[in-house]
Amino acid sequence: MEEVWVAGAAMNRFGKMSETGREAAVRVALEALDRAGLRPTDIGYTFVSNAFGIAEKQAHVGPLINTALGIPEVPSCTIESACSSSSAALHEAFVHVAGGFLDAALVVGVEKLSHLDTLSSTSYFAMGADYAFESRNGATFPGLYATIANAHMHRFGTRPEELGAVAVKNHQNAAYNPHAHFQKPITLETYFQSAPVAWPLRLYDCCPFSDGAAAVVVVNPRRYRSEIRSVPAAIRASARAGNIAALQDRPDLTGLPASRLAAERAFRQAHLERSDISFLEVHDCFTIAEILALEDMGFYPKGKAAPAGVDGETQVGGKLPVNPSGGLKAKGHPVSATGAGQVVEVFEQFNGLAGHREVPHARYALCHNVGATGGSCSVHIFERV
Amino acid sequence: MEEVWVAGAAMNRFGKMSETGREAAVRVALEALDRAGLRPTDIGYTFVSNAFGIAEKQAHVGPLINTALGIPEVPSCTIESACSSSSAALHEAFVHVAGGFLDAALVVGVEKLSHLDTLSSTSYFAMGADYAFESRNGATFPGLYATIANAHMHRFGTRPEELGAVAVKNHQNAAYNPHAHFQKPITLETYFQSAPVAWPLRLYDCCPFSDGAAAVVVVNPRRYRSEIRSVPAAIRASARAGNIAALQDRPDLTGLPASRLAAERAFRQAHLERSDISFLEVHDCFTIAEILALEDMGFYPKGKAAPAGVDGETQVGGKLPVNPSGGLKAKGHPVSATGAGQVVEVFEQFNGLAGHREVPHARYALCHNVGATGGSCSVHIFERV
Repeated sequence: MEEVWVAGAAMNRFGKMSETGREAAVRVALEALDRAGLRPTDIGYTFVSNAFGIAEKQAHVGPLINTALGIPEVPSCTIESACSSSSAALHEAFVHVAGGFLDAALVVGVEKLSHLDTLSSTSYFAMGADYAFESRNGATFPGLYATIANAHMHRFGTRPEELGAVAVKNHQNAAYNPHAHFQKPITLETYFQSAPVAWPLRLYDCCPFSDGAAAVVVVNPRRYRSEIRSVPAAIRASARAGNIAALQDRPDLTGLPASRLAAERAFRQAHLERSDISFLEVHDCFTIAEILALEDMGFYPKGKAAPAGVDGETQVGGKLPVNPSGGLKAKGHPVSATGAGQVVEVFEQFNGLAGHREVPHARYALCHNVGATGGSCSVHIFERV
Repeated sequence: MEEVWVAGAAMNRFGKMSETGREAAVRVALEALDRAGLRPTDIGYTFVSNAFGIAEKQAHVGPLINTALGIPEVPSCTIESACSSSSAALHEAFVHVAGGFLDAALVVGVEKLSHLDTLSSTSYFAMGADYAFESRNGATFPGLYATIANAHMHRFGTRPEELGAVAVKNHQNAAYNPHAHFQKPITLETYFQSAPVAWPLRLYDCCPFSDGAAAVVVVNPRRYRSEIRSVPAAIRASARAGNIAALQDRPDLTGLPASRLAAERAFRQAHLERSDISFLEVHDCFTIAEILALEDMGFYPKGKAAPAGVDGETQVGGKLPVNPSGGLKAKGHPVSATGAGQVVEVFEQFNGLAGHREVPHARYALCHNVGATGGSCSVHIFERV
């Protein structure tokens, strides 16, 4: 198996884009290539994620991006796995390069929904759930994650202020991230003043709908070591897992089994322990999801991640910084750009580009990206080279 | 690189499905596994294609399929490349197995659109074109392929009766295919009596909108040789290429460069010559597209494929049988099931399941699957084991 490195990664500011998805995708791809020190002509395959292309009446985005990059003959495909789309795309890029099929691949995640009304956006998002058993019956993601949050509270005594602590921390981190959708800290008081969306989740428990684009350049260092001008992030593990999509069919709602399984696979692949990880970017589409992620992946015993967050352990500067970027919660969640955006944070941390949110001496970073309520999960582990 | 075999493949009858896409997908997957002699628990990854999941308000289909197969923990993703979606998915499955990352993968393509009105279906299809430069300005695929047909006629003197000969042949082949959408032969007279859609293309030049599902089981024979109960099809080449999406930006309209490039890559990979191929399944979304495919892939010089069709060379029993299944033209074109459906034809031919459309003594078969007007193309070459 060949060594695989992230040689460059870049994103725009998540939030509201005035340009089209294809334009944003090309711009972040060029920036990622520039950060890597590579040219478009080095790319052998482009893996795009754009789950809601329908919002721009555009499928088959790869040829548009490649044409704009000046490499129309390069093959491409679009990869969807609900909110874990671009981490699934990264997995494909990893397999192609690790297997020796390619020397360099481009991963681009992009989403533009802000020109739609909220009802349309919500109904597109809901397509990631199980239509027959969930969305057709009115379930949307805030309601589904609220069900999970209730189960977690019931079993472990998780308290609203522990959910709030996740929000406060991630908004604080995002305040130092020029790419973040929200760059203003909030207090626990602000959190408690925000309107309930689906009990126990308040507005500040929920990530926003964001536009955004992020790109990752994946290479084989045997071919590109001398060209690379960044501090690369070696991919030590690229693991995915699935689970029953519909909550109603799961025996337990206090965790996401796909996260557990993907993390187990990733740590086995990387030959690393949880204690080796310097920081994590986890899928906090709702505050409860960050707590689940830390427990499911084995960083905390079940029921212990929430109090640890209140104790400050997961802050930048804490024992185990979680979501230094601000996470989906505050950096934003442009569905198909989210997984690639997590890798941008790892790249910027490793390259001294993270400013006030820098995790000092970071060597290993883990990215955790969930599809829907955990029907899919990707876990990647990176090492600073 | 590991050897990669198609151990099983199955499809439903293309046309109009009463069941949902997810139900059809599971049924064909189980049949493909059964034909292979494998169980769902053998599968390590599921690659789904379902470009128009929006028509059923359903994305993230992989976990639904895997859950119904009893393997919810198996990872999945959905792969889109316009009309070449499931051949792009097959390419991913190939890379995973050839690279030694998996011993068995499932590819499922499925589409259900028949419950929509024609305008909705047409507008979904048009998403495969370049929205900014084509579909927004009213271009749909019949018009785009008509432009290509006109260019081909102008340059090579291609005649309407040569287009008609493709339709007559493919309807004849489909009459022997129980999976085909249309199972009734047509005459050249019927062809000429059909209404013009976009000059020079008539109704019988155009493939139909079809519902359908097809599944392919891909394995490493080192692991599964003794379990397989079919005549497997070894994948000797899995190659893809891209091209400028918008016709207006291409220097020449008399061929699809992505087909040429993907075929060159495939023949290089397989170490085979054009003359080794026993039969082809090519992407005849419109009759002109079959002619382009044969010329672009080097089976005929430019301008010579159309007369060869009139001379009967491409019939079953001819020198080079093309689309023994009936092709997209008559077997039908459920966008994301088409590429996988081509592989089903290869599998049935190799396994003595093709009945009256059997190509005798077939050893090598080629499948050619185009995305949109050739922004993407996949070429796979199979050998009867």
